[in-house]
Amino acid sequence: VVITVSVVGATGFAGAVLTDLLSRHPGVRIDALTSASYAGLTVANVFPNLRVDAVYQPYDCDRLASTDIAFVCYPHAESFPVVAELVDAGMKVIDLSADFRLKDPDLYPEWYGFEHTREDLVAEAVYGLPELYREEIACARLVANPGCYPTSMLLGFLPLTGRFRLSGVIVDSKSGVSGAGRKASDKTHFCSVHDDFRAYAEVGHRHTAEMVQELSLAAGEPVPISFTPHLLPVDRGILSTLYCRLTDASGLTVLPSANELRELYEAYYQDEPFVEVVSAVPALSEVQETNFCRMAVRVDAAAGMVKVVSVIDNLVKGASGQAVQNMNIMCGFDERLGVEGRA
Amino acid sequence: VVITVSVVGATGFAGAVLTDLLSRHPGVRIDALTSASYAGLTVANVFPNLRVDAVYQPYDCDRLASTDIAFVCYPHAESFPVVAELVDAGMKVIDLSADFRLKDPDLYPEWYGFEHTREDLVAEAVYGLPELYREEIACARLVANPGCYPTSMLLGFLPLTGRFRLSGVIVDSKSGVSGAGRKASDKTHFCSVHDDFRAYAEVGHRHTAEMVQELSLAAGEPVPISFTPHLLPVDRGILSTLYCRLTDASGLTVLPSANELRELYEAYYQDEPFVEVVSAVPALSEVQETNFCRMAVRVDAAAGMVKVVSVIDNLVKGASGQAVQNMNIMCGFDERLGVEGRA
Amino acid sequence: VVITVSVVGATGFAGAVLTDLLSRHPGVRIDALTSASYAGLTVANVFPNLRVDAVYQPYDCDRLASTDIAFVCYPHAESFPVVAELVDAGMKVIDLSADFRLKDPDLYPEWYGFEHTREDLVAEAVYGLPELYREEIACARLVANPGCYPTSMLLGFLPLTGRFRLSGVIVDSKSGVSGAGRKASDKTHFCSVHDDFRAYAEVGHRHTAEMVQELSLAAGEPVPISFTPHLLPVDRGILSTLYCRLTDASGLTVLPSANELRELYEAYYQDEPFVEVVSAVPALSEVQETNFCRMAVRVDAAAGMVKVVSVIDNLVKGASGQAVQNMNIMCGFDERLGVEGRA
Amino acid sequence: VVITVSVVGATGFAGAVLTDLLSRHPGVRIDALTSASYAGLTVANVFPNLRVDAVYQPYDCDRLASTDIAFVCYPHAESFPVVAELVDAGMKVIDLSADFRLKDPDLYPEWYGFEHTREDLVAEAVYGLPELYREEIACARLVANPGCYPTSMLLGFLPLTGRFRLSGVIVDSKSGVSGAGRKASDKTHFCSVHDDFRAYAEVGHRHTAEMVQELSLAAGEPVPISFTPHLLPVDRGILSTLYCRLTDASGLTVLPSANELRELYEAYYQDEPFVEVVSAVPALSEVQETNFCRMAVRVDAAAGMVKVVSVIDNLVKGASGQAVQNMNIMCGFDERLGVEGRA
Repeated sequence: VVITVSVVGATGFAGAVLTDLLSRHPGVRIDALTSASYAGLTVANVFPNLRVDAVYQPYDCDRLASTDIAFVCYPHAESFPVVAELVDAGMKVIDLSADFRLKDPDLYPEWYGFEHTREDLVAEAVYGLPELYREEIACARLVANPGCYPTSMLLGFLPLTGRFRLSGVIVDSKSGVSGAGRKASDKTHFCSVHDDFRAYAEVGHRHTAEMVQELSLAAGEPVPISFTPHLLPVDRGILSTLYCRLTDASGLTVLPSANELRELYEAYYQDEPFVEVVSAVPALSEVQETNFCRMAVRVDAAAGMVKVVSVIDNLVKGASGQAVQNMNIMCGFDERLGVEGRA
Repeated sequence: VVITVSVVGATGFAGAVLTDLLSRHPGVRIDALTSASYAGLTVANVFPNLRVDAVYQPYDCDRLASTDIAFVCYPHAESFPVVAELVDAGMKVIDLSADFRLKDPDLYPEWYGFEHTREDLVAEAVYGLPELYREEIACARLVANPGCYPTSMLLGFLPLTGRFRLSGVIVDSKSGVSGAGRKASDKTHFCSVHDDFRAYAEVGHRHTAEMVQELSLAAGEPVPISFTPHLLPVDRGILSTLYCRLTDASGLTVLPSANELRELYEAYYQDEPFVEVVSAVPALSEVQETNFCRMAVRVDAAAGMVKVVSVIDNLVKGASGQAVQNMNIMCGFDERLGVEGRA
Repeated sequence: VVITVSVVGATGFAGAVLTDLLSRHPGVRIDALTSASYAGLTVANVFPNLRVDAVYQPYDCDRLASTDIAFVCYPHAESFPVVAELVDAGMKVIDLSADFRLKDPDLYPEWYGFEHTREDLVAEAVYGLPELYREEIACARLVANPGCYPTSMLLGFLPLTGRFRLSGVIVDSKSGVSGAGRKASDKTHFCSVHDDFRAYAEVGHRHTAEMVQELSLAAGEPVPISFTPHLLPVDRGILSTLYCRLTDASGLTVLPSANELRELYEAYYQDEPFVEVVSAVPALSEVQETNFCRMAVRVDAAAGMVKVVSVIDNLVKGASGQAVQNMNIMCGFDERLGVEGRA
Repeated sequence: VVITVSVVGATGFAGAVLTDLLSRHPGVRIDALTSASYAGLTVANVFPNLRVDAVYQPYDCDRLASTDIAFVCYPHAESFPVVAELVDAGMKVIDLSADFRLKDPDLYPEWYGFEHTREDLVAEAVYGLPELYREEIACARLVANPGCYPTSMLLGFLPLTGRFRLSGVIVDSKSGVSGAGRKASDKTHFCSVHDDFRAYAEVGHRHTAEMVQELSLAAGEPVPISFTPHLLPVDRGILSTLYCRLTDASGLTVLPSANELRELYEAYYQDEPFVEVVSAVPALSEVQETNFCRMAVRVDAAAGMVKVVSVIDNLVKGASGQAVQNMNIMCGFDERLGVEGRA
């Protein structure tokens, strides 16, 4: 064991997966798991399926002083003051909320309904997608762990951005219910979801801003995105069906062959430990409980479009697994340590 | 009771729903239910959830002589010879297969892998979407009942076609497992579908040809479509998320307001008994076991696109319910007779 | 239309099914649907899958004066004051709660935690299982509609009670999630139920008292019951697996043949419109959305026991359908009116 | 790595889990994975969710000569000739079929419909429930890996057998669909299982013989068992609800307190690595994808009965995990090696 870690807000779904992953990670010791609602209870009290021997405690920045890395799993707007306090106290922080993902502080009131008061940290935070920002993550004090939908989308489009211009970008995503969080509501009642299916936040879902920011950065120009999330009657996983048209620099439509695209994708991700380019379109079950993003690319010649189907587990590569992957990079561990197995 | 009906190939999923609907229809008497595999068994033997008192018998055209209307529920390529025999024998036929949906006989080898030998009937057959071809259906001898995916897509786009030109048309559809048919296979094994989700036939699904034909006819010009079907871990229902760009006659992009579109859709469908335009995007559960198609329309101004979410039950409005609706039109019954309730 | 009805507390799951059934019942007109939480909203606002044109209003006894029959769908303890008020005002009432099911007023504090203040009505109320108390129901002012588990159990054991003495009675029941009610909680969160299964209230579930009371009354002697309910990852339906030993009057074990029992059951239920004795053990799907109870009986000779498997829909025969059946009896309608189809 | 292993018949559900477990076991190297149907294909071709780099090959006893331990995952009746061949060739074998579980060779024709021709091996085989036969397993050449239902039942009753006499034993078990095997059939079609629930083989399920044999051996007297399996709409896991009456040696009914029983169970299993006695009745999710059996015990005083609820994963503790646990015992590994994590 080399470092100590703490999870702040450990009793949501992402917190539970993170607790499980960290408890089995050979390079870390868990310092503290905090919870406002469950302080005093054991992990087994709250999550009988976890076999982690620990007790939740109230959050107290001072008591985390010995922690090398803190993971913060608070809801947006509640997260950034705690993150700021921890960073100011000298800890490295991986924030799983959206509070440091957007580069432009003015976007927070518009998309998340709160005023950000730590523009310094917004400027400093590194967007924690290892496939894009591995080197910056290695030196970061504060990592903004990506959203689940943006992760599934960005990994699917990135190989294209360097080579083509993208237009007509459509992101049609389907997510398991754990993405809606652990809080009970009409919308997550079993009888509202089971044997059912629906779209939600059909225009203007909050992840759109994050998607547009990062895809535009990768593309070197603004890329509008039409994003539609849907709620699947499954527990975990996101499948995104991605559509776009490709043009060359002069704006002429180009349509590569399926083989060319497959090779482009394989080359782009050949050294990535957690991205798999496959030939048969992947199902959710191929990545559930893993940190892998698996994808296949198709050419729809008759319609002049490229399609990519990508799958991740929203709680692992879309949240806690990616957070551990980021921790590994920040600490000089092998990037796969503790996230290669089931989570 | 006014007419007699028979169901040929009554033991698939669509046949079962059709049997149920017809058994409770006040205007019909069931003459015969045929089945090669289950001849001699009762309906209750094969479908314990159906409370219909009847015995399956082998198919025999002569014994159906007294039938006014025959519904044929055979797989494609197997259907058209039987349909032809029944029509030639003087019966009116509603064919639930794809064998008479495509107008161009040359498309059958390409999309369905068989040579059509009854081009006369292909030319005569009416595409059985009441919202488009009600008058032709009323006089038809042979109705080609639409596919489930095309039904969900066409109803979603039709209000736009008269008013705008459509481009960048994407149909991202999600279907329940009953759409894959009753035959057991690895793909329909519970453990292959449950808690899982996947795309299939990602490019070139057979329904694409039918979609392009009918949307192009409605639009008055060829409209390419990129179609991606997905398999939901639910029993019944299709949700299609539809995307397009709108242009005026001169090719300039237009983006109506959400209100304008809502009004356009409501006006278009105001007299339709089975199409409902609603404000909140509909879930599958709102139409499961009914003959309704329910839809909502959205404007994604930032991306310059229009989105429509439409839902149907694939076995009812997408198959057997629509077939009964067509029968009602052909026989002069109230179009809603026997298909207003649960199916 | 002959009578007017009201549903008090119409926005729970049972209330929704009742609303749907009554709206299609040819003999009734809905006077009022009351709801504290949703007053002012339409049925479609709250239940988009219902196509009933009505608005919820606050409960007000005076405004229900024109109602012939009121259905009360309140939680236990909250129900009896309202029931009493309605009965006192001259209405006939069918109470779907447990507040009048137990004959002994002293049992309410023990099993339900409240003191009953209307012993007169407890004494007057008729337990609304038509198969047992049809004649009493016909003349009743107040019907205590049975619990879902007791319905599935009683119908399964009744044919035995007249002929044998029962011992070692075990009721192992499995219920869909709708039985837990519409209120969102950790226990009904999709992620707590989906792909999972558990027992709950493993000893001393409240329905035990009701089961013991009615089975003992039918048996003419006290019959202890060991009851274990379980939570199925399905929406609707209860399957009860029932076990017992049979003895004759002198206490000697008897073990009839499977045929004898089958004939006994068929004879017992031959005139019942909603009980079906079948040969193959029934699945939930055979009764979901119907008012039927279907059952099969087995002899386990090696173990010296009789087994019965019975299935109902907890919201229909286990609640609202049975309530309408009771209403039909009270009003002289055909008992099947409005409850023969899907619900 | 210390030993080499092979899996014969590796492409069923149990074979897949076994492949996954062995591929990650630090003490073994996989020698061969055999499959008649899939020879020549990679593991990833057949199970895209497994990340094991290997190719299936046809079964050939000679080519397995270097294998220390062979796991046989064939259906009953097909398994014993292959097991015999491997044992005769000098390998140690763990047989996951039922072919060596029953001690009395005459029971095979009765319960499994085939004549056993290797009574010598039937006599030699050790029933592979480590909690009962750990020492015999350590020295065994041939281990008959227990059935899934018997495992869940035996572990639940064992603590009682030494202390009390059991009567009125009822085993009401509910299993996920993977227990029905990977072969596609009407019964495992998604639409036959989803949102549904049923009992099957309601009297005389094959596992009854195995249950009676082992429980009687443990009890030191014949113990009749009434067993009812049910099919849950979940992928993996068995929950058994166990009922019995307890008597002392003289036949008088005894009813210990809940605390006494809890202490008895905890003491009985205190050194067992894979049995957990808990206070809250366990849900399937607490053991899915693990090798644990978790249980809680209850006293139903009013009915004079004891209830135990036990849960296992049918493919892990009920099959492949228990097989690896047995291999660990046979090879002198720590019993937990390679089976502590997710499977």
